[in-house]
Amino acid sequence: MRIDIISVAPDLLESPFNHSIIKRAKDKGLAEIKIHDLREYGLGNYKQIDDTQFGGGAGMVMMIEPIANCIKKLQSERTYDEVIYMTPDAKTLNQSTANTLSLKENILILTGHYKGVDQRIRDKYITKEISIGDYVLTGGELAAAVLVDAVVRLIPGVIGDEQSALTDSFQDNLLSPPVYTRPSEFEGMKVPEILLSGNFPKIDDWRSDQAYKRTEEIRPDLLDDETS
Amino acid sequence: MRIDIISVAPDLLESPFNHSIIKRAKDKGLAEIKIHDLREYGLGNYKQIDDTQFGGGAGMVMMIEPIANCIKKLQSERTYDEVIYMTPDAKTLNQSTANTLSLKENILILTGHYKGVDQRIRDKYITKEISIGDYVLTGGELAAAVLVDAVVRLIPGVIGDEQSALTDSFQDNLLSPPVYTRPSEFEGMKVPEILLSGNFPKIDDWRSDQAYKRTEEIRPDLLDDETS
Repeated sequence: MRIDIISVAPDLLESPFNHSIIKRAKDKGLAEIKIHDLREYGLGNYKQIDDTQFGGGAGMVMMIEPIANCIKKLQSERTYDEVIYMTPDAKTLNQSTANTLSLKENILILTGHYKGVDQRIRDKYITKEISIGDYVLTGGELAAAVLVDAVVRLIPGVIGDEQSALTDSFQDNLLSPPVYTRPSEFEGMKVPEILLSGNFPKIDDWRSDQAYKRTEEIRPDLLDDETS
Repeated sequence: MRIDIISVAPDLLESPFNHSIIKRAKDKGLAEIKIHDLREYGLGNYKQIDDTQFGGGAGMVMMIEPIANCIKKLQSERTYDEVIYMTPDAKTLNQSTANTLSLKENILILTGHYKGVDQRIRDKYITKEISIGDYVLTGGELAAAVLVDAVVRLIPGVIGDEQSALTDSFQDNLLSPPVYTRPSEFEGMKVPEILLSGNFPKIDDWRSDQAYKRTEEIRPDLLDDETS
């Protein structure tokens, strides 16, 4: 899988993409990630990329031309399955979207800053808009890093223990059950007896039960919405 | 505001915290962020921090003792308003939580890895559990970076243009209206006439209308839930 990211703050993405799972995926040749500095497509001597908004109001808007030129150049080099814009005013990322995207070959991600990009970019070039949640970030870089992490770890072969990913929260619309490890007692706090029993069918039942209870308590909306 | 973060992958957080808004907040003395390497609290010669889970199953669990020791040491140095655990099986971060947290003085954030932390840590030390969304990440570091960015930018004085933050998506439970900047025509695509009219009351009406329409189309759930 190849992922291209267009950003005005490429430095911000350096450490997330050179550590942890994403580095492992790159080292194994399972993912290739290229970051493109939008500033290189800026206009004039000052490499301008943003301007005040039409109609007045606070905050700068990212101009259409530098972004259009950058996207066109990349699209001349390969075909993208999706051209994604990270923005809070979009459908929210969920595990099912991450699963779908992990099967794609080429993805282009545009990250916004300031008040966002000129709407005409969204109308003409973007095939999918993704929000990572109902909160506002300084820029789309961290959102892109989150998306890439969520997607890349699902590519077969990236994480060592396939089974572990399948039992993560959300893969079955339930939160994970509580987990425990040694020691069995710490400062008076004990591990639930059942987990020490060696009775694996009963342990499975207990875990399903706990996962359901926890979901019901913390995120009842997940139980209502079988399609999410 | 002071934010302490406990992590097994402190390198991952380097670039997000040394660029953009977070760097500006640190430079202005408005936020202090310290990252603590959990490995330094690991047990024995190998600095062990995780172990297999009780009851069997794939994936490692972060042990209680190193985390407890790290939290206790930090709590001996100052009082934390919240000890937050970043985990997908928790209430989801929203703008209102970010607003609340931006008023706190000291926050401690624990980031998980693998299958998560021993449940007893959550029962005893954690005061607030936060998920950034319904998807699974390799670790809690990116989630912590997202939380810190969302919170720090709300501290008064951090972003230059206060008014801009107030008109962001979610501050009024509506998505933002579309924005446009120069040129007024690009490859045949024109800016809506109204934005060039200079009639500011009408422009305000148009924007409210567009914000409402966009929210209704993309995120109708935001309109249902006045308390979110």
